[in-house]
Amino acid sequence: MARIETSSGYILSPDAADPRLTAPVEGIDHLGQSVNARVVTERPLTIYLNSQEIVTAMTIGDHPDLLAIGFLRNQGMLRGDDRIEAVDYDDDLQVVVVRTARQTDFEDKLRKKTRTSGCAIGTVFGDMMEGLEGLRLPEAELRTSWLYALAHEINRTPSLYLEAGAIHGTVLCRHHRPLVYMEDVGRHNAVDKVAGWMHVNQTVPEDKILYTTGRLTSEMVLKAAHMGIPVLVSRSGFTAWGVELARSFDMTLIGRLRGRRFLCVSGAHRLLFDSDPDAVAEEGAKHRRKGAGPDA
Amino acid sequence: MARIETSSGYILSPDAADPRLTAPVEGIDHLGQSVNARVVTERPLTIYLNSQEIVTAMTIGDHPDLLAIGFLRNQGMLRGDDRIEAVDYDDDLQVVVVRTARQTDFEDKLRKKTRTSGCAIGTVFGDMMEGLEGLRLPEAELRTSWLYALAHEINRTPSLYLEAGAIHGTVLCRHHRPLVYMEDVGRHNAVDKVAGWMHVNQTVPEDKILYTTGRLTSEMVLKAAHMGIPVLVSRSGFTAWGVELARSFDMTLIGRLRGRRFLCVSGAHRLLFDSDPDAVAEEGAKHRRKGAGPDA
Repeated sequence: MARIETSSGYILSPDAADPRLTAPVEGIDHLGQSVNARVVTERPLTIYLNSQEIVTAMTIGDHPDLLAIGFLRNQGMLRGDDRIEAVDYDDDLQVVVVRTARQTDFEDKLRKKTRTSGCAIGTVFGDMMEGLEGLRLPEAELRTSWLYALAHEINRTPSLYLEAGAIHGTVLCRHHRPLVYMEDVGRHNAVDKVAGWMHVNQTVPEDKILYTTGRLTSEMVLKAAHMGIPVLVSRSGFTAWGVELARSFDMTLIGRLRGRRFLCVSGAHRLLFDSDPDAVAEEGAKHRRKGAGPDA
Repeated sequence: MARIETSSGYILSPDAADPRLTAPVEGIDHLGQSVNARVVTERPLTIYLNSQEIVTAMTIGDHPDLLAIGFLRNQGMLRGDDRIEAVDYDDDLQVVVVRTARQTDFEDKLRKKTRTSGCAIGTVFGDMMEGLEGLRLPEAELRTSWLYALAHEINRTPSLYLEAGAIHGTVLCRHHRPLVYMEDVGRHNAVDKVAGWMHVNQTVPEDKILYTTGRLTSEMVLKAAHMGIPVLVSRSGFTAWGVELARSFDMTLIGRLRGRRFLCVSGAHRLLFDSDPDAVAEEGAKHRRKGAGPDA
């Protein structure tokens, strides 16, 4: 695990130079010329909770321990006060086993659970609503100057995205500072790895902001709610159900954050407009990325 | 179901005006002003094959019949020669039942199957490899002029993406003509709906091109292989496993198609360079969209 203290203050940020995370690929470009490119890796990781197989995720493969812990937390299978006795990872078998002091048995739950497919989807969606009934996220301040500072710094952070593309990022932030930046081929995995990091480090969620490059679907909102984070921000757009869920939790939900523009569709009472938008540069082509379409 | 014969020759294309597919959302913009926006809907759809519950997908909800058929086809649960006796859709229950003449029983398979999570993922990934052993896709011609014509027309087609964002598109094409354009909050659903359309219409795959806005992950390549389509094209980037699988099937895999640029990483022998790239316009900001980052 790369633990990098960058000058900008990241506790953990992408290790774009890690040779396991990208692969060289030979190809032909639009001129018919041979070119070499780098692409992100994608491999299966099977997650066990104690003796029970839970899920196989497709992942770039960094931080299998944090991915496993965060996935189990966000599915409600691991509780905040659960003591993790060990996390065993076998690189050859591509298996990670999370062992807890508390006995767990999700045999019945797994049999009955809703299986879901595709991109805007949870594997165990039925379970994901559990434990969130009546949740109201805590009050918090959110300055527009923080939003602009975060977007500016995150877009310029060396990343697998800039190195190879085709990857999503999620960043845990506090005020104007990005703290933990995770990337993955599955955008949900990137969030789960942040959740795993928070669990291991017993991080307080109330004063945090979760920034993601992905769309604000129902599942993304549910994951942020499980993490207890009151503010979820994305460059990308919304789904109607994502908005509805965010409002039910009183989560501040901000999307389409690009350059000086953004759209807040829930929890606007936390927003403090302390920036002059005219002083914020429009986004240059160099820093456009996923979801940079007219209304992504 | 909207069946639109557009002047450009689409057999089926997005019905951006369908009020069930987007919802109005009130929000606050970066100036603190109240704004109204439209966002895509997202709802669960539970798919049954005969008496067996198979999966719950999160979808925008158009074409539930085609989504169900295409999903089952791409999972190998429905065969090309399977006769579909009925597809029953219940809008209130959000359930679709595909009934076949052949008896099916995937009870054991579903119990043992690999569950996967996140974006770059298959629900039934283990199953998806079945039936593809030794597959070599047929020879086909692919002119660069077709690629440029397709990208140009698809980017300008009225769509939910242009209306509300946060959605992926997949287009079945022949030569320079886009034929069937599907969109969905789950990018895999968009592909599955195309597969469903092909099954229902008994469409020959050998001379087709599949265009997608999403990343070329292992699952996208496997779905195209199940559909028998020899050419898969995307605006977005690749994963290493996606490239490896495409090469094993001798599939032509083209990514990062934007303006005059593209990268072909597999099956370049099908490519015919019949365009002068200098005559193709670079992509204007207006037509940038998902995956428009430096290397998405």
